[in-house]
Amino acid sequence: MIASVQLPGERVNQESLQRKMEISCAEAVLLDRIRRHHALTKNDLVALTDFSRSKIAGCVNSLLEKNILTKDGYGNNNCGRRSVLYTLNGNRGLLFGADIGATSIDLIITDLNRQVLARYSEPALVADGPHKILDHVSELLTELLKNHGLVNKPILAFGVGVPGPVNFKQGMVVSPPIMPGWDQFPIVEYLEEKWPNTLVIIDNDVNIMALGEFTKQEGHDNKNIIFIKIGTGIGAGIISNGEIYRGSSGCAGDIGHICVDKNGPICPCGNRGCLEVLAGGAAIAERAMRAVREGKSPILKKYLEKTNGVLTAKEVGAAAKEGDESSIEIIRESGRLIGEVLAVLVNFYNPGRIVIGGGVSKFGNILLASIRQAVIKRSLPLATKDLPIAFSSIVDDAGVLGAINLALDQLLLRQISD
Amino acid sequence: MIASVQLPGERVNQESLQRKMEISCAEAVLLDRIRRHHALTKNDLVALTDFSRSKIAGCVNSLLEKNILTKDGYGNNNCGRRSVLYTLNGNRGLLFGADIGATSIDLIITDLNRQVLARYSEPALVADGPHKILDHVSELLTELLKNHGLVNKPILAFGVGVPGPVNFKQGMVVSPPIMPGWDQFPIVEYLEEKWPNTLVIIDNDVNIMALGEFTKQEGHDNKNIIFIKIGTGIGAGIISNGEIYRGSSGCAGDIGHICVDKNGPICPCGNRGCLEVLAGGAAIAERAMRAVREGKSPILKKYLEKTNGVLTAKEVGAAAKEGDESSIEIIRESGRLIGEVLAVLVNFYNPGRIVIGGGVSKFGNILLASIRQAVIKRSLPLATKDLPIAFSSIVDDAGVLGAINLALDQLLLRQISD
Repeated sequence: MIASVQLPGERVNQESLQRKMEISCAEAVLLDRIRRHHALTKNDLVALTDFSRSKIAGCVNSLLEKNILTKDGYGNNNCGRRSVLYTLNGNRGLLFGADIGATSIDLIITDLNRQVLARYSEPALVADGPHKILDHVSELLTELLKNHGLVNKPILAFGVGVPGPVNFKQGMVVSPPIMPGWDQFPIVEYLEEKWPNTLVIIDNDVNIMALGEFTKQEGHDNKNIIFIKIGTGIGAGIISNGEIYRGSSGCAGDIGHICVDKNGPICPCGNRGCLEVLAGGAAIAERAMRAVREGKSPILKKYLEKTNGVLTAKEVGAAAKEGDESSIEIIRESGRLIGEVLAVLVNFYNPGRIVIGGGVSKFGNILLASIRQAVIKRSLPLATKDLPIAFSSIVDDAGVLGAINLALDQLLLRQISD
Repeated sequence: MIASVQLPGERVNQESLQRKMEISCAEAVLLDRIRRHHALTKNDLVALTDFSRSKIAGCVNSLLEKNILTKDGYGNNNCGRRSVLYTLNGNRGLLFGADIGATSIDLIITDLNRQVLARYSEPALVADGPHKILDHVSELLTELLKNHGLVNKPILAFGVGVPGPVNFKQGMVVSPPIMPGWDQFPIVEYLEEKWPNTLVIIDNDVNIMALGEFTKQEGHDNKNIIFIKIGTGIGAGIISNGEIYRGSSGCAGDIGHICVDKNGPICPCGNRGCLEVLAGGAAIAERAMRAVREGKSPILKKYLEKTNGVLTAKEVGAAAKEGDESSIEIIRESGRLIGEVLAVLVNFYNPGRIVIGGGVSKFGNILLASIRQAVIKRSLPLATKDLPIAFSSIVDDAGVLGAINLALDQLLLRQISD
C-alpha cells in the first residue's frame, strides 16, 4: 500500500514507489489496454493481447486484490452473455496535473481513473521564477484538496508541463528562452520534497499537449500523432507508438527553426528564414503593421488605433473574420509555410493524425485550409489519404489533461516501456 | 518444444508458434537486454531493468529450463567476484535471413544467438517474379542446410527484405515500382507453406538495413537512428526506441519525394523538384552527361567512350576519385541537397545517429562532407552536437543482418512491443 499521508522529510524515490505498486510486466500491459479503452472485459483483453485466457484471469485477479482494478458493470460478449467490465480503481488515489504556461497556471486533480475531481486556473508569470511559482502551485493544490474533501487520499503521481526545453531524465529545464531563473532548477526534486510519496514528472508544454490529444482521441487508433503548437513560437509534440517521442537529446519536435526561405529574414537563432520567424505570431503581427503602413488595410488600421499602436496576431485574426483581405492573405501565407514543413514531416514520419493547437490556431478555417492544401499538394498520396489534419478538440485543456496522462503513464507503464 | 522437422502440410500460425516459445512478458524484457549486450550477468540485469533480484533469478532459471538461455562463462561483478554470464542459446534453433534486391539475393543462416553458420549470394532479377524468386530462395536455403550439416535443426524464424513498399501486417508488397508481378503477392503465406513451423516476416530493404545498423552498433546507446539509402532512389529507414518505425500507413521514411526545389524538374511522381530527381543516381548520371556535352570534363568523356555512351553514378564516382572537378561538383551538389533535407529531419526527429548507405554512398568523403556541412549549418546545435553522421560500417551486409534481427525481434519480443 502507498502511504496516505505525507510524512515530513520522508523522501521516497521513484523506483521504490513503483515497486510499491507491485505491478508485474504482464499486468502493466493489461492496465495499458484498460486505460486506453476505459473499461474492458476479459474477452476484450484476450483479443487485445497475446496472453492466454488463464494468464489474463490471473493478472486481473491480482490487480483486483491490489485495488488497482475495479469492476465497472457489465459488457456483452460475442454470445450475447454478459461479462464483467474492469476499469482502473479511481479510489486507489489521486493524480495531479499542472500546466505552467508563460502567463498562466492550470491545475487539475483527478482520481486514478482520470475522473476530474477539481480544477483551477489563474494568471501567473512564469518569469517570477521557480520558487515563487512552484510554491504557489503547491499552495493552490493543497487548497483544492481541502476544498474538495480530498485531504486524506494518497497522491500517486504529479505531472507538470512547462514552457521550455526539458531534460526529461534530470527533471529540469535547460536554457529556456522565456523562463528566467528556471535554467537547471531541479523542479522534480523540489516538488518531490513538497509532495513526498508522490511520483513527480515534468515535460515541455508541447509534448504534454500532444499526449493530451492522443489520450482524448477515444475510438481512434492513431498511435502516431504530430501536434503542432502555433503561437509566438512554433513547435511540435510527437507521439510514436502511443508514447511521447523526445529524441536522443530531448529536443525532438523543435520545428520552429526549420528553414523555409534561404533568403528570408535573420532569426534570433542566427540562421535565415526559419519557419518561426516567417509564420509565427510575431511574423503575423509584423506583416499586419506593414499592411497598415502601406495603407492596404483600413480594418487593421482601426484596430491599431484601438490598441495604442500595437498589433498582435489576435487583431489579425479578428480583422480576417471581418473580411479584411490583407489579414486573410497574411494568415494564408503563414498556413502555407507551416503546411510546406508539415508536408516534409508527413513524408518522413507518416503520422496517423495531425493536430493544430496554440493561440494562433484560433484563426480558424482560413489557416487550416491553407495548411491542408500545402500538405496534400506536397506529400505522398499514400501518406495523406487517411490523414486527418484538424484543430485540437480540447484546445486549452490539452496541456493539463496531458500532464495527468503523463503522470499515469509513468506510474503504471514504466516497466513495459523501459 | 518447437518441432524439429518440417511436416508437409502442417501449417502453424505465428501466434501459436510464439506460445510454443512460452516466454513471459518479463522474460521477453530480459531477453531483449541480453541480446542487445550479447551476454549479461544477473547483476547486469538488475541494473538494466526495474525488476527485483529474485524476479530476475526466477526468469533466468525459467529461460535456462526452456533452453532459450545458456551460460556463457563468467564476468566480474563490482566486488571483483566472478558471476555467470547468460546468453541466448545458439543450439535452440536456426534463423534465416534473406535480402532480395533488384538484381541480387543475399542469404544467411545463423543460430538463435546470431552466430553466422552459412551464407550465400548470387545475382538474380527480382523482376522474374515471386514464384521463381521465392522458390529459388527456398532451394538455396535447403542446399545451404545440407552443405553445412544443419538439416535436423528447427528453423525458428525467417526474415526477408524486399526492394519495395511493404504492407507489414498483411505480409505483402504494395504497388512496388521495380518488382513486376509481386504486387499483393502473399509472400509470408507462400514462404510459411514452404517452411512450416517457421515464423516468416517481411519488410522493405531500407527498414531492414536500418535495423541491421542499429543492432551492429555495439557499445553505442543510440535507440533513434535514421538510415539513408542513396541509390537510384533515396529512402530512409527509421529506428525509434530500438525498433523499426513504419508509420501509420507503413510508408514512413519515404523521403525521396520531399520537395527541395519548387522550380525544379518534374519527377515521375508528378511533383516538381523532388529530392530523388535532383540528388539520386539518375540525376547524378544526367548531370555528368551534361558536363560532357558542355565540354567541361575530359575525364568523364573518357569514361563515356569506354561505356558505349552511357554514364552512371558509378563513373562519376570514379572520375571524382581521379580529381575531375565537374564530378566532384556534381557529388557535392547531391550531398548538399540530401543534407538540407536531413537538417529538417534532425530538427524534427533529433536522432542519435545518421547512417548513409546504398550504392551512391560509395562516393566517399566528398559526399559525406557536403551532407554533414548542410546538416550542421541548418540544424539546431543541441540536436547536432553529439550527432555522428557516417557511412554504414557493414555496407552490403546491413540488409541481410537486419533480416536476421527482424526475425529474432518478432520471435522473442512481440509480447512486449505489442
